[in-house]
Amino acid sequence: MARPAPLPLTTPMSRTAPSPIVESRKWIAGKEFPAERPLLNVSQAAPMDPPPRALREEIARIALELPEAHLYGPVLGLPELRAEVATQWSAAYHAPVAPAEVAITSGCNEAFTAVMTTLATAGDEVIIPTPWYFNHKMWCDMSGVTAVPLPTGAGLLPDLETAARLITPRTRAIVLVSPNNPGGVEYPSELLSNFYALARDRRIALVLDETYRDFDSRDTVPHVLFRQPGWQDTLIQLYSFSKAYRLTGHRVGAIVAGEDRLFEAEKYLDTVTICPNQIGQHAALWGMRNLGDWVAAERAEILARRRALEEGFAALSARGWRLLGCGAFFAYVEHPFAMPSPDLAPWYVDHAGVLLLPGTCFMPEGSRQGPRQLRLAFANIDRAGIGTLFERLSTIEP
Amino acid sequence: MARPAPLPLTTPMSRTAPSPIVESRKWIAGKEFPAERPLLNVSQAAPMDPPPRALREEIARIALELPEAHLYGPVLGLPELRAEVATQWSAAYHAPVAPAEVAITSGCNEAFTAVMTTLATAGDEVIIPTPWYFNHKMWCDMSGVTAVPLPTGAGLLPDLETAARLITPRTRAIVLVSPNNPGGVEYPSELLSNFYALARDRRIALVLDETYRDFDSRDTVPHVLFRQPGWQDTLIQLYSFSKAYRLTGHRVGAIVAGEDRLFEAEKYLDTVTICPNQIGQHAALWGMRNLGDWVAAERAEILARRRALEEGFAALSARGWRLLGCGAFFAYVEHPFAMPSPDLAPWYVDHAGVLLLPGTCFMPEGSRQGPRQLRLAFANIDRAGIGTLFERLSTIEP
Repeated sequence: MARPAPLPLTTPMSRTAPSPIVESRKWIAGKEFPAERPLLNVSQAAPMDPPPRALREEIARIALELPEAHLYGPVLGLPELRAEVATQWSAAYHAPVAPAEVAITSGCNEAFTAVMTTLATAGDEVIIPTPWYFNHKMWCDMSGVTAVPLPTGAGLLPDLETAARLITPRTRAIVLVSPNNPGGVEYPSELLSNFYALARDRRIALVLDETYRDFDSRDTVPHVLFRQPGWQDTLIQLYSFSKAYRLTGHRVGAIVAGEDRLFEAEKYLDTVTICPNQIGQHAALWGMRNLGDWVAAERAEILARRRALEEGFAALSARGWRLLGCGAFFAYVEHPFAMPSPDLAPWYVDHAGVLLLPGTCFMPEGSRQGPRQLRLAFANIDRAGIGTLFERLSTIEP
Repeated sequence: MARPAPLPLTTPMSRTAPSPIVESRKWIAGKEFPAERPLLNVSQAAPMDPPPRALREEIARIALELPEAHLYGPVLGLPELRAEVATQWSAAYHAPVAPAEVAITSGCNEAFTAVMTTLATAGDEVIIPTPWYFNHKMWCDMSGVTAVPLPTGAGLLPDLETAARLITPRTRAIVLVSPNNPGGVEYPSELLSNFYALARDRRIALVLDETYRDFDSRDTVPHVLFRQPGWQDTLIQLYSFSKAYRLTGHRVGAIVAGEDRLFEAEKYLDTVTICPNQIGQHAALWGMRNLGDWVAAERAEILARRRALEEGFAALSARGWRLLGCGAFFAYVEHPFAMPSPDLAPWYVDHAGVLLLPGTCFMPEGSRQGPRQLRLAFANIDRAGIGTLFERLSTIEP
């Protein structure tokens, strides 16, 4: 008998584009970078250093001394970690958040997918400002939910009235990321209040991803949404422990939402990962309790790198570059070249030893802006590295 | 303005039943169990002890000395672990499996959800023998895929011709679990070959979950499917590191499949968890390389517990109990009482201090068998505990 044709690789994955992070790794795979011009990798928002020694020692202690750190735990996470988030959030946002309103997840991406599954089904719509975080778009694609782009203007801030016009009977949520990935921009508290009111009045959800909250440059509370009575009916906040405590490899994130919604999300989390890994949760808990000063210093360093980025692009503006947004771990920029960014990005790998992502990763297909834009995740490189980056960008051009 | 009505908790979660594990925890929550009759928890396939000391020491060493164990890694997993699985699988199944055909996931549940997303979309069908693993059914429900029950007969083995008749143009896969959860039964190699041929000829996938392969009582190769030319077009195998190495709290599983399929699964894995946690992967790798003898002893202990279960239920047969299947970590039984199992299970908590799961968790809604059946995850209790279990079951009756 003839060998049958290969099993078709059916939807929903075939309609989903591959991850740009995975694709970009192929540009550097197997390549040699000379010692005098090592690779500058500004593609992913990932600290290159491990957590501080004291936290690593605590992880080692937990592994040796805490038997339950190796066993299944509650689906919604370690009770002590849920309580610690509730306590610190209540203080930070000047509003009571209960431990039962906190769920721990296997990273913030899983947090997003879990809440989306409680909100939207195939055929539904979700409004997301562009440039958007590619994994949000990928999840929509693979679950048959339409990601409706909300184009941003100057300063990369979304416009409330434009958003209101995009709402249809199939709209289930507006998704905001602040500080923004990939745009870096910090959304003003008033803007978030306005979006909250819009979502509440139209009876859709406001999903607010605050993965980068620990690196916000403002010393004021970023929003007052947790102070709104009945916020649980509208607001769903997402968070990641990966960035503040350098725990990217441990996969620990969080959802802050109403108990009813967490009850639904729990079914998804149980089915997909059963529980978040225990070691990572204990690490996050210890970090929250002991690394406040250390995180403050990390933030200061990231803010200093941000200033270096802003200065660098100010100098590059003479060469036609434009800094569209800068903050969190990111600079989002417009380049001056005719070469479109999907070609320019691998060109930079080969000619400048710089790995960054093209704006097309963050834009709907066919967008005119994407090919002119690039994202740089500057948290990966220190200030010397930032100097080197600008040296290369200002002297090596296509 | 009046407070708006709560945001609707829309599908797909609302059509998905909660996890029976989560529900069953509520039966024991806040209850006191007397010292002379402590709780016997046989609800979940979860070793109660941590991994051996040497492995915990290795985890501690990795946490302290390996910086990259705290950082993002490749989406499809640690290359050394993929290679180790490929090597050990090639030896165990007498067939070449390539590292590129292995992906590491955040537990075997995620492995299932990832491959399902490459196979089926809302409106499609998947055939699963009953009793089935509840998380498989839950994933189908939440993704709009119809789980088509394939009732099993004597010995809980699925019938090939019945399966063939259930295939429709919307069928995308047959899902088998061997050794089976919840039924315990080990599927004969010939039966698996027949199901493989059926799937291949009908151009659907055969998903084979071998989470409990390390506790198979047979000393022969469990199937010859990896020896079939072009198996990558039909077969998708799933595995868990949780059971053999007592790593349930670390969340590490695997997919063995064709490279094309893993390319599609990678998009899902990137979007949901970015990468499996690194510490757990290093633990699994060390376990595979160093704990062969230890796992063999664990297997011998589980097989001894299984014999104790079989003897216990043989004795209980006089009281009307029937052992339907026994193996892996499970005994799947028929009880003799008028009380349906969803009532009987919490009754046992209160009156006998035994936590087990009702058969209704593993059966389609409305099934006549489910209320007469129970699952006991006996791997959780030692032989003394098994003695106590039978003492209680034979003397405490509703």
